[in-house]
Amino acid sequence: MKSYKLAARTCSGERTMIRVGEVTIGGPELVVIAGPCAVEGREAYLQLALQLKEMGAHLLRGGAFKPRTSPYSFKGLGREGLEILAEARRVTGLPVVTEILDARDLEAVSACADILQVGSRNMQNFTLLQELGRAGRPVLLKRGLSATIEEWLLAAEYILAAGNPNVILCERGIRTFETATRNTVDIGAVPLVRELSHLPVIVDPSHATGRRRLVPPVARAAVAAGADGLMIEVHQNPDLALSDGPQSLHPEGFQKLMQELRPIAAAVGREVRLSKKENNQLAVDTAATRLLSDSPGDI
Amino acid sequence: MKSYKLAARTCSGERTMIRVGEVTIGGPELVVIAGPCAVEGREAYLQLALQLKEMGAHLLRGGAFKPRTSPYSFKGLGREGLEILAEARRVTGLPVVTEILDARDLEAVSACADILQVGSRNMQNFTLLQELGRAGRPVLLKRGLSATIEEWLLAAEYILAAGNPNVILCERGIRTFETATRNTVDIGAVPLVRELSHLPVIVDPSHATGRRRLVPPVARAAVAAGADGLMIEVHQNPDLALSDGPQSLHPEGFQKLMQELRPIAAAVGREVRLSKKENNQLAVDTAATRLLSDSPGDI
Amino acid sequence: MKSYKLAARTCSGERTMIRVGEVTIGGPELVVIAGPCAVEGREAYLQLALQLKEMGAHLLRGGAFKPRTSPYSFKGLGREGLEILAEARRVTGLPVVTEILDARDLEAVSACADILQVGSRNMQNFTLLQELGRAGRPVLLKRGLSATIEEWLLAAEYILAAGNPNVILCERGIRTFETATRNTVDIGAVPLVRELSHLPVIVDPSHATGRRRLVPPVARAAVAAGADGLMIEVHQNPDLALSDGPQSLHPEGFQKLMQELRPIAAAVGREVRLSKKENNQLAVDTAATRLLSDSPGDI
Amino acid sequence: MKSYKLAARTCSGERTMIRVGEVTIGGPELVVIAGPCAVEGREAYLQLALQLKEMGAHLLRGGAFKPRTSPYSFKGLGREGLEILAEARRVTGLPVVTEILDARDLEAVSACADILQVGSRNMQNFTLLQELGRAGRPVLLKRGLSATIEEWLLAAEYILAAGNPNVILCERGIRTFETATRNTVDIGAVPLVRELSHLPVIVDPSHATGRRRLVPPVARAAVAAGADGLMIEVHQNPDLALSDGPQSLHPEGFQKLMQELRPIAAAVGREVRLSKKENNQLAVDTAATRLLSDSPGDI
Repeated sequence: MKSYKLAARTCSGERTMIRVGEVTIGGPELVVIAGPCAVEGREAYLQLALQLKEMGAHLLRGGAFKPRTSPYSFKGLGREGLEILAEARRVTGLPVVTEILDARDLEAVSACADILQVGSRNMQNFTLLQELGRAGRPVLLKRGLSATIEEWLLAAEYILAAGNPNVILCERGIRTFETATRNTVDIGAVPLVRELSHLPVIVDPSHATGRRRLVPPVARAAVAAGADGLMIEVHQNPDLALSDGPQSLHPEGFQKLMQELRPIAAAVGREVRLSKKENNQLAVDTAATRLLSDSPGDI
Repeated sequence: MKSYKLAARTCSGERTMIRVGEVTIGGPELVVIAGPCAVEGREAYLQLALQLKEMGAHLLRGGAFKPRTSPYSFKGLGREGLEILAEARRVTGLPVVTEILDARDLEAVSACADILQVGSRNMQNFTLLQELGRAGRPVLLKRGLSATIEEWLLAAEYILAAGNPNVILCERGIRTFETATRNTVDIGAVPLVRELSHLPVIVDPSHATGRRRLVPPVARAAVAAGADGLMIEVHQNPDLALSDGPQSLHPEGFQKLMQELRPIAAAVGREVRLSKKENNQLAVDTAATRLLSDSPGDI
Repeated sequence: MKSYKLAARTCSGERTMIRVGEVTIGGPELVVIAGPCAVEGREAYLQLALQLKEMGAHLLRGGAFKPRTSPYSFKGLGREGLEILAEARRVTGLPVVTEILDARDLEAVSACADILQVGSRNMQNFTLLQELGRAGRPVLLKRGLSATIEEWLLAAEYILAAGNPNVILCERGIRTFETATRNTVDIGAVPLVRELSHLPVIVDPSHATGRRRLVPPVARAAVAAGADGLMIEVHQNPDLALSDGPQSLHPEGFQKLMQELRPIAAAVGREVRLSKKENNQLAVDTAATRLLSDSPGDI
Repeated sequence: MKSYKLAARTCSGERTMIRVGEVTIGGPELVVIAGPCAVEGREAYLQLALQLKEMGAHLLRGGAFKPRTSPYSFKGLGREGLEILAEARRVTGLPVVTEILDARDLEAVSACADILQVGSRNMQNFTLLQELGRAGRPVLLKRGLSATIEEWLLAAEYILAAGNPNVILCERGIRTFETATRNTVDIGAVPLVRELSHLPVIVDPSHATGRRRLVPPVARAAVAAGADGLMIEVHQNPDLALSDGPQSLHPEGFQKLMQELRPIAAAVGREVRLSKKENNQLAVDTAATRLLSDSPGDI
């Protein structure tokens, strides 16, 4: 007997699909969430958000409230950050994911974000989980640093049992003895959780590896293993980032990654929804191809 | 340069001593906190509390709010549990330690408890830590399941930096690959933390081992390693305990442990304050000895 | 300064390619090693070997000497197993990989195998590593259960420093707190080791996961992350296997996996060399296509 | 049903006691093995050996064959080191413990050492274990870096099943995520293994912690937890040690530790056999006390 009930995959094998804006998480599309670790300023964020949209990101990320190991580190812009997120959402039309640390911010965060993120360190903050069970927003639940898969699913069960059926699980690396990477991404957890549960599973290769150069290969691996989506940290100037710079991609790196993901996604039967720009380009290309193939002398 | 400042040991080597009731945590005395995992009912708790006092416990423990891995497990009696704790304090005169899960319970918990416990899962619940920094009560901060010593001290730093200088660190076992015990107690952390910080360090061998038979040897080891105190789970009927039964001592086991701890404590230069009963007994013994030594022909 | 020298990637970025039979490990081809955990009998092994060849395996695996946690478990057929491997090599023309446990078996094992495997438990058996440095065969060096990437590369350095330049690194999962899978495959280690070293890196998803159903997704992930090859356990009747049954694929499962790997390999710029049967089929198909395209009225 | 049989504690609860020279490991005495990590030279070793004897060490340690993570590190003096050990044994009369890496050295090592040590990295070198099962010497089996207690006992079972009943288990710290110490000593393993098995268990706080200052408190903890003995690294000049300097005690530190251990040992019902010097001193003291008590006017 499983210790979790609502999170467990049923006989029918039906999967939870979560519609946010124009994308569906948990369905046939691969969903990519991108953005900086933290919202650091209005203009930079809006500019990056537009760029990411053009490059094909489906949702935006950005922390307004940042849980930091040290009390002396930058902890985010707070309410001001939320407003910037709301503006980015209006400007780009993309849904927004942001972390919530304190149940007392639930209303404010819900007003600005489409998906509420629970960070690793709060995976077993049961008070927060129960409050999110009563929120009217999907929850992105990161796996705890040393949480077993069962504990992770039981944390999801807290939210489900409190009335919110829309939980997205996010593997972000676990803590092991290896120190060459920030964490060790448990890639086997992706297919295993999809076997045990009907909830969508995404992977955050940025926190999992902590090293920019490892983000693309691990992102590809995640898609190949069956992940429903990815969460990628991108910063215009990672060297100046107030947090997580070493693991953030430059925008060009993100664009290259999006291109690399497509054939992998296709290989496992997933589509990657194109950005508007790409759609336009594709329309032009297709038209051109048609013209060419209409022309005599075609081979 | 240390990442924590207020928690770091200073050149003077002075140590934080926290006076609660008649005991001082962090001073020359070894302090023993005892009680069941959770407060399960009024009469049983009061009876056990009196028994533990007589056996030499210096503080009482008991959870009113229990963080549980599964949403379907017993989560404590809540406010009712707090009232029982307050009554036990009145009846025994012993100070009380209990866990706080939600900053919104701060006033209620502070009214009934002398020390506020932050559990392992909340060690990096920074919202809660900051609130506790503003509380007028000492905080017992358990080490997270996979928290490094530095992260643990930084979590303490959150409380200190928010204005509360009275933090007690509690090593309760970390998560490793070994499954023969519930956790692996990091015994080396005790002298290391005492070297790095001026804060008192206690050990919880009950959660650390998860097995009743291992509690006494690990408790002895903790004292030998220099711990300022112990936190021991005791239950009148561990087989019927609503949580953590397998790791709870029977009262007789606790009494035997208290006797075993004395010579170890003495060997590392610590006293163990005697219970009233023991004091009385000792007075009788001493008087008898005096009578004997007063008698002529003594050898 | 790196602690390993010969194993470190040089400025030129040149990679070690190891030619064994008709395949090259570390080059543009994805190399697949397949076979049962242990050689359990002559007929079964030969039959499976032929089947695997037809399905596209490039090398055969099979243990003659098995390191087993318990002294009472099946430890392989020993010398008899080696002879069966030699016969399978003759019959299929495929090179053979097998584990060596004892330096004193070096001559016997080298006579029957093309690649000598060092198992996880022997990764730091420096005596064995030094002997293998003097062997005239490539060595497949599995990562130790709890070896850091640096220790793994230093173990390779032992072999290189003793004169053998042909070392293949094999990630096979590390030991973590998670018990839902046998080990946790460190997928980030694949690109990281390829960045740090010029040696080829393959992945063993069978030992890494310990669960048959997780083998294909993790194998796909390994290829997507840039692995030079895979080592897959296949058994005709996993339920009757004398070791590692639960993680062994059925032959049909292996065939399906080979098909799934192709588009992933292609997506990361790797070819998968076809089996003879497939080549023949392809020749037929191509001929047919050519015929068709030669025909008038072709669109 | 236990997977190990010969290593399992029997109903009678009888314990294996191993007599080496004048000490018995696994009996009521606490046994202390001391010496440098490696034998680095004749004179220094002999001098230290005599000093350690005088300070109360019961056995000598010293590596002649050192397993080193890097092929470029000092690997011990080999056969020359063995001869120095043999001489130290003659000169001091103390039995000697040294590591064996290669079964082919069995005869040579057995000629010079009283106890053959299997290091952490070789705990599952089953070839070596089986050979040691046929050796006529007790074996000190260190726990592997990431070996579970069950795997450790099964490794002992290999030696027992091959005919050697004299195995001493040595807890030397396991590998965890914590990097503040070299390893994490699993103090709970001491009483647990003594509950599961009849074999003696000792602790090596030097490798377990990797820091000189933590050796005494962890050594005391080990004794308090019930360990049958300790293995302590001591070097005349740790700063110049060719290996493990940071974790080696100075001779004075060792002497101080021996004094600290006595009351702890007594508290758990163990004796610490005195060195000759101490015996002499004690004889003098007792005589003096007797003289005093014989004198009139005694109180």
